[in-house]
Amino acid sequence: MGTEVREAALRARDAARVLALATRTQKDAALTAMAEALVAGTDRIVAANAEDVAEARAEGTPENVIDRLALDPERVAAFAGGVRDIAALPDPIGEIVRGSTLPNGLQLQQIRVPMGVIGMIYEGRPNVTADAAAICLKAGSASLLRGSRSARRSNAVITRIMRDAVASAGLPADAIQAVSAEDRSTSTDLMTARGLVDLVIPRGGAGLIRTVVEQSTVPVIETGTGNVHVYVDADADLDMALDIVINSKTHRTSVCNAAESLLVHRDVADEFLPQVVKELQGRDVLIHGDAAFQAFDGVDAATDDDYATEYLASEISAKVVDSLDEAVNHVRRFSSGHTEAIVTRSLEAARRFTMGVDSAAVMVNASTRFTDGGEFGFGAEIGISTQKLHARGPMGLTEMTTTTYVVTGAGQTR
Amino acid sequence: MGTEVREAALRARDAARVLALATRTQKDAALTAMAEALVAGTDRIVAANAEDVAEARAEGTPENVIDRLALDPERVAAFAGGVRDIAALPDPIGEIVRGSTLPNGLQLQQIRVPMGVIGMIYEGRPNVTADAAAICLKAGSASLLRGSRSARRSNAVITRIMRDAVASAGLPADAIQAVSAEDRSTSTDLMTARGLVDLVIPRGGAGLIRTVVEQSTVPVIETGTGNVHVYVDADADLDMALDIVINSKTHRTSVCNAAESLLVHRDVADEFLPQVVKELQGRDVLIHGDAAFQAFDGVDAATDDDYATEYLASEISAKVVDSLDEAVNHVRRFSSGHTEAIVTRSLEAARRFTMGVDSAAVMVNASTRFTDGGEFGFGAEIGISTQKLHARGPMGLTEMTTTTYVVTGAGQTR
Repeated sequence: MGTEVREAALRARDAARVLALATRTQKDAALTAMAEALVAGTDRIVAANAEDVAEARAEGTPENVIDRLALDPERVAAFAGGVRDIAALPDPIGEIVRGSTLPNGLQLQQIRVPMGVIGMIYEGRPNVTADAAAICLKAGSASLLRGSRSARRSNAVITRIMRDAVASAGLPADAIQAVSAEDRSTSTDLMTARGLVDLVIPRGGAGLIRTVVEQSTVPVIETGTGNVHVYVDADADLDMALDIVINSKTHRTSVCNAAESLLVHRDVADEFLPQVVKELQGRDVLIHGDAAFQAFDGVDAATDDDYATEYLASEISAKVVDSLDEAVNHVRRFSSGHTEAIVTRSLEAARRFTMGVDSAAVMVNASTRFTDGGEFGFGAEIGISTQKLHARGPMGLTEMTTTTYVVTGAGQTR
Repeated sequence: MGTEVREAALRARDAARVLALATRTQKDAALTAMAEALVAGTDRIVAANAEDVAEARAEGTPENVIDRLALDPERVAAFAGGVRDIAALPDPIGEIVRGSTLPNGLQLQQIRVPMGVIGMIYEGRPNVTADAAAICLKAGSASLLRGSRSARRSNAVITRIMRDAVASAGLPADAIQAVSAEDRSTSTDLMTARGLVDLVIPRGGAGLIRTVVEQSTVPVIETGTGNVHVYVDADADLDMALDIVINSKTHRTSVCNAAESLLVHRDVADEFLPQVVKELQGRDVLIHGDAAFQAFDGVDAATDDDYATEYLASEISAKVVDSLDEAVNHVRRFSSGHTEAIVTRSLEAARRFTMGVDSAAVMVNASTRFTDGGEFGFGAEIGISTQKLHARGPMGLTEMTTTTYVVTGAGQTR
């Protein structure tokens, strides 16, 4: 391991010990100071970001990626506001998760405590730098932030501003540290800093996440990939189904909870397909369909690759199924385990679908776009876990913590 | 990946879908049938085990390892009884972990659901085969069991008996499968069966656990290594301290919650060291001590290696510290994060110690031997997690599950 990550992690561990004992008042003061400093530092942030954007343009980066990278005063104000919102959330640390008195008189308490040091490996958007640092700090953990090379100047300035603010509020600046993003080595070092880093969370595209999952020896929470299905059941209210399909697919196409695949029960296909094809195509959504969908002009033939693809674009795969079971089996085969939806009036169909698929969230008669920490009322979200270990679905502050058992006795032995 | 693990995992996934929908009544019937069949099959199990033991002896295996491998009717009855005990535990599946109605009327429920397919990689004791299969089944998951080569005949017979019993109770036999243990390939295959296996739990020595943690791409829960400390504070009741040290070290030396290191505050060293050295040595415990301990006959000099060692034997490292902070720092440096104990009358010392160390369990005035699923009242234990992700400390049935969000609406869109 290179010295940079090692030394940063050791400083982070020391900072984490202080943070673990910090009161909510102290942490919220630091977060408020961070939010104010980010707003006050808008010009510096935007200027550094302009250099990142200019370099990205010179390198021929596509404009949609540039848009994710670019900051203006409104965007800075938005993520500063996000930091302030995190200050307003309850402190997860110290919660007694369970407790009991054992038969021998021992008092058992399971107490929520911080993770320690959390590594974030992320792409693109520099707002993640502020989000992640603030969530980790509120959860009592130090953060090691490894953003993308393309945003390195923006991230450096944002991090410097937050560190100074944390120090001004009396907590250790090393609770928030950026590691350099010039090459892959710091990313690899973070993933393999077992014993120094307690958790690594990748945020970004499928390629980044796969790399982290495969290479990391530090525990990882996999986030974000969403090959999301909407199943329109034989008993669906078809007007509702149309609303939900259109909203799930077109409300925002680049997000992980957007629908990528449509399954329609054969009993309602004759009535529903003309409507849904018209509405999707009217919104410039390209349909990759099975034979039934291909009966409509402009529908491409779907392959298994289509069914497996998270388009993150105005495209959708589509298929008619003979039964709810076929829908469930299709979802189990192709889904990334993020979110699925069923539209039905049947309680039994809802039950069989929700128990049959194996995903982090299942919507019954609601848009897939609701799988979101904010929508769920968690107040802050570090990502959406698609794995089953530790956290599944939107991760809020609670999911960024661990627990410890404290057992108090009066000399008990076995 | 070899075909064996792949095909076993695919069969396990199918079985897991059935198990996930099985009622508690069905699962308990299968567990009861397993317990009865194990008792009825005692002769077959003991006969197969005798061959394993004979081979191990012929290969020159030490007698203490042979003892872990060997089964007799009492030991079979004991693990069959363990399976019956698991039937008596509440079913964790279906618990509503949290629920609320969101401002837009969506009804949010976080529901406890099975993991799916759990891989167990373990050494030695064939009783783990029955324990692990039973716990996984009760938690609604299929198990892929990869025991040690030395116990392969015993494990094969135990597995066959359990599979037949599960089938006789109307659940799929493939809910429990042993994978061959002739070479390392099946172990490697299990660890890398990402997408087919949801969780891998290693149980065994530090070497096995390290290998699984480093090589696995499937999420892992690290269990068991216990470099466990007892700290005798300046404010300790020294009679209580002596009881706790002796019990923690000598009650059973080969277990992960046995004490491996003793820290004594300098203020009580003059009084306490003669007593504790005498009592430990009187029980044939070899002390590896610092200068203060070396003043006593028969005490070896402790190195940093000693402080880092989990002896699992009648040995202990020992050191006098100048302060509680020094004790905490020593623990943070050398502990494996399993269990620590403080003996003190001081509320403030207890608070600083419990908040200062970073371990799965902290005992205040109690033996370290209490970190145990049975002692904690969890009823069954698959191991003791020393990592922070997902589960920390003794893992019972709840820790073998995950959750899913079910969101029910009436056509809500964003």
